Amino acid sequence: MKPTKQILSTIISEVKPLIGQGKVADYIPALANVANSKLGIAVYTNDGEVITAGDADEAFSIQSISKALSLTLAMMLYKPEEIWQRVGKEPSGQAFNSLIQLEMEHGIPRNPFINAGAIVVADLLQSRLSAPRQRLLEFVRGLSGDSHIVYDKVVAASEMMHSDRNAAIAYLMRSFGNFNNEVIPVLNNYFHACALKMSCVDLAKTFSYLANKGQSVHTKKQIITPTQTKQLNALLATCGLYDGAGEFAYRVGMPGKSGVGGGIVAIVPGEMTIAVWSPELDKSGNSLAGTRALEMLSERIGRSIF
Amino acid sequence: MKPTKQILSTIISEVKPLIGQGKVADYIPALANVANSKLGIAVYTNDGEVITAGDADEAFSIQSISKALSLTLAMMLYKPEEIWQRVGKEPSGQAFNSLIQLEMEHGIPRNPFINAGAIVVADLLQSRLSAPRQRLLEFVRGLSGDSHIVYDKVVAASEMMHSDRNAAIAYLMRSFGNFNNEVIPVLNNYFHACALKMSCVDLAKTFSYLANKGQSVHTKKQIITPTQTKQLNALLATCGLYDGAGEFAYRVGMPGKSGVGGGIVAIVPGEMTIAVWSPELDKSGNSLAGTRALEMLSERIGRSIF
Amino acid sequence: MKPTKQILSTIISEVKPLIGQGKVADYIPALANVANSKLGIAVYTNDGEVITAGDADEAFSIQSISKALSLTLAMMLYKPEEIWQRVGKEPSGQAFNSLIQLEMEHGIPRNPFINAGAIVVADLLQSRLSAPRQRLLEFVRGLSGDSHIVYDKVVAASEMMHSDRNAAIAYLMRSFGNFNNEVIPVLNNYFHACALKMSCVDLAKTFSYLANKGQSVHTKKQIITPTQTKQLNALLATCGLYDGAGEFAYRVGMPGKSGVGGGIVAIVPGEMTIAVWSPELDKSGNSLAGTRALEMLSERIGRSIF
Amino acid sequence: MKPTKQILSTIISEVKPLIGQGKVADYIPALANVANSKLGIAVYTNDGEVITAGDADEAFSIQSISKALSLTLAMMLYKPEEIWQRVGKEPSGQAFNSLIQLEMEHGIPRNPFINAGAIVVADLLQSRLSAPRQRLLEFVRGLSGDSHIVYDKVVAASEMMHSDRNAAIAYLMRSFGNFNNEVIPVLNNYFHACALKMSCVDLAKTFSYLANKGQSVHTKKQIITPTQTKQLNALLATCGLYDGAGEFAYRVGMPGKSGVGGGIVAIVPGEMTIAVWSPELDKSGNSLAGTRALEMLSERIGRSIF
Repeated sequence: MKPTKQILSTIISEVKPLIGQGKVADYIPALANVANSKLGIAVYTNDGEVITAGDADEAFSIQSISKALSLTLAMMLYKPEEIWQRVGKEPSGQAFNSLIQLEMEHGIPRNPFINAGAIVVADLLQSRLSAPRQRLLEFVRGLSGDSHIVYDKVVAASEMMHSDRNAAIAYLMRSFGNFNNEVIPVLNNYFHACALKMSCVDLAKTFSYLANKGQSVHTKKQIITPTQTKQLNALLATCGLYDGAGEFAYRVGMPGKSGVGGGIVAIVPGEMTIAVWSPELDKSGNSLAGTRALEMLSERIGRSIF
Repeated sequence: MKPTKQILSTIISEVKPLIGQGKVADYIPALANVANSKLGIAVYTNDGEVITAGDADEAFSIQSISKALSLTLAMMLYKPEEIWQRVGKEPSGQAFNSLIQLEMEHGIPRNPFINAGAIVVADLLQSRLSAPRQRLLEFVRGLSGDSHIVYDKVVAASEMMHSDRNAAIAYLMRSFGNFNNEVIPVLNNYFHACALKMSCVDLAKTFSYLANKGQSVHTKKQIITPTQTKQLNALLATCGLYDGAGEFAYRVGMPGKSGVGGGIVAIVPGEMTIAVWSPELDKSGNSLAGTRALEMLSERIGRSIF
Repeated sequence: MKPTKQILSTIISEVKPLIGQGKVADYIPALANVANSKLGIAVYTNDGEVITAGDADEAFSIQSISKALSLTLAMMLYKPEEIWQRVGKEPSGQAFNSLIQLEMEHGIPRNPFINAGAIVVADLLQSRLSAPRQRLLEFVRGLSGDSHIVYDKVVAASEMMHSDRNAAIAYLMRSFGNFNNEVIPVLNNYFHACALKMSCVDLAKTFSYLANKGQSVHTKKQIITPTQTKQLNALLATCGLYDGAGEFAYRVGMPGKSGVGGGIVAIVPGEMTIAVWSPELDKSGNSLAGTRALEMLSERIGRSIF
Repeated sequence: MKPTKQILSTIISEVKPLIGQGKVADYIPALANVANSKLGIAVYTNDGEVITAGDADEAFSIQSISKALSLTLAMMLYKPEEIWQRVGKEPSGQAFNSLIQLEMEHGIPRNPFINAGAIVVADLLQSRLSAPRQRLLEFVRGLSGDSHIVYDKVVAASEMMHSDRNAAIAYLMRSFGNFNNEVIPVLNNYFHACALKMSCVDLAKTFSYLANKGQSVHTKKQIITPTQTKQLNALLATCGLYDGAGEFAYRVGMPGKSGVGGGIVAIVPGEMTIAVWSPELDKSGNSLAGTRALEMLSERIGRSIF
């Protein structure tokens, strides 16, 4: 069955009662102040159709969803071995910001979606791009067709004020020779990427290349090769949902990437890109109602990769 | 493109040169003595067609591949919550036989495919079946249509003589209240499951229900529900390849389960079940040439879940 | 100043108000049922004088204090390198019954006073003595001059019923080749040693060789050499108080060994042996009021090793 | 027996053959370039006598020995609870520069002699002293009576260039709220303290307060109280020799502090202060020949705390 406005609206109303059971991220005020009642979903089919329900057009802080975008840029700029000798491809089995495994594995992060791995990717972009922050912004504006996308300066500044843990991660990797630039500017870019404000519709359009063998449905541009697309989806499926990737695969069965702003992007290869938003998080840091909405959508339309 | 005898034979000859680059499991003589030159592949399509190349009909020790069969039996016998309150669904990020995470997470194994998790599953089967070992044997004989499948008694006995690490795992779980039977009989059953001797053809036929929404292609019996099938494939995709699940997803892109005997089973949902065998293992403990064969097959026939 | 009956009585009355602030060990009923109000102290000087206050003559379960006795026996039976290649001499920095470090350090326990180390010592005794349990009993009866000392059979049996964690430790060490006998009999002896019932007076007399260059004050027998005595005191000072050895050294400043029965033995080399008993434990598992009593005694008589 | 020039000279000649069996610290050139043949010892008795042998008057980089001096300063400036709520008193059971335990224990270092703990102490000094670096220099010049003691600027600068690991430690503690100043200036002071150049004679005189109930033998000034002295010696005995404190206590039996420059200070409370120097280190990072020299001295003069 194809996703319809009707199906999405029903799902939105059915998951709404879950609001109150999760917890909005509160480590910075800019996130803590978001209304927990926000709830939106957008589907962007490979035919170019946009189907939405709820707050699908309201921009929010995409946070770690940006890690998939930064990795895409790195894959466009570097040979595979240049990336994968510096960051692994395995699930971490630990919290996203832990230094324990990083020390035991000599400064090589487990994958590009835990903080350490994303900071290595930010370091890679810093080494090769003259203005990585501007480049990323142009990239998402182009892919989404939304020229109003901006960095939320308040969020980015606030993240910088709480950057000690990530600074520790960067310095630890530098002590192992796996970080090449100055720590502060790289973290600043990293936090700006996290502070991108995008709506569900923006996200679904932006990530459409992952559902379409690397070609953006919106711009028709080939962003990455079909093989790279398969690889990136594989990384998302095994590592994209913090320490809840297994549960997400079990329940939803789609490659995805979540952020502590409450957004999740999920891919049905060959068919569609989905984005949901609900700020309250479960224990793993993934949107609680958002995950449930994707699970229901998977069931209703009979789609998953498994 | 559909898999053909020609494609499989070409792949076999192309991966043959990899032999010598891996390492045959040698912790027990019965495994160490297997010729490292063995190399076989079998595809069983959902139409019931069997396509093979190399040593596809020779039986070998399936080892950890049996963990997916034991879990299937447990899913047939127990309600989901009865299983998943005792074992998790997340990748471990650690070696398959480590006790570190198990202690830190209070005796709840990360997933049913690391040793600790499989031992919990064996404990579940022990509690509910009068003769779990016989039941498992009948299960695979039925699914494969091969009534000659047996337990390799030498392997099983040899495993029991090297069972200290697994006994430590079982006792540690029992100290946390997550193990209910006597340790020795459960380990004995666990090692017998690992000592099943099956060929690539046997394995491909046996696991066909995972490619066919829970219904065995060979027997037409519904083994588990479509939802359970999706769930089990999801668990295999995130946790089925030891600490190499991410790399396997990246390169092959199919749910799978490996064993240190050198076998790997991989699933293309809706289409086919594949089994390969080559005894030499890579650093993660997965068949080196077997993984490469699956990677090539995925490329040649253009199939993966991503 | 020399310790007097007066000083000990004053200390007992001054630490009494601490009762209620700790927690009696409750993992087995036989320990949980001990009255938390028990409080005793005994000093045995190198001149052979016994000074006591409170419940100094009442026998209690010495638990881990026995680890120092078992190690003494092992030092009498083995060459140093035979012991110290199988167990280390360093503080663990972890809980006494953790398997994490044991796995990371390949089955070699950090020191002979954590459970793993004491189980290795029990394995050593098992290999060389025909009746280790009887031998230990004779050893303490002789040293204390108290022929009524017995094993508390109820405690020993109860420990065996809660032995899963220690069985896990033994099997893990066996998997690394650092355990040579059958697990159950060794654990049984280990638990019997823990179940020795001795009073403060018994303990102070028994351990007098540690204050007297290896010669028992009571029997005049040379138990171990002066060098071995120095070594054993050093091990007690750095590792004898679970993960509270640093705090104990900081406050009390004497080599010591504690047990979860609430007993502590402390040594003033060249002068005296002290034993205290108060069943309530602090967070590290050491007697709360007992530690305070030793701290006060150290201050009042101006004695410590520092 | 009292230590004599003769005894020290004999020890020096007897340990000389050990040179070549250890490894000079080489993480910065300024340390790597020190001649491995250097070997000196100085004893400073509580009567004020100086006895020396070998290169006892040659200044070397005291490195972590400075951690005991910085802690002394902190104990002079802060109430005990102000210090000990921010740093523990227990041995770490891990490498001196590990972040693993620090993360697991929420940013509270195990003791003041591992890097994390010493960085907390440096942070404490930074908060309360206007010129901590100058103050420390005056402190050691006064205690040693040697006004020529300086910071080795080359060593300090070189350490700053290899400070990534320590920066990671500081930032990790800051993320837990256990670090209050700017990271770079504190690390700079920390590295300067490590870069103090002092001879064995300087060190023995400087630390004489630890052998003399807190009163400097040289200046007659009361540096810390007798109780603080006992406490500090206790910390040195359990935590002063990296992850080799147990072995050092077992062999030498004196409170001590080592540095990767090859120096070790050891205390015989009530009698004397000893300093040795030999640049080659054992596996724990303690001077190999220096430890052996102290072990022999302990045996020859019959002195240890045990």
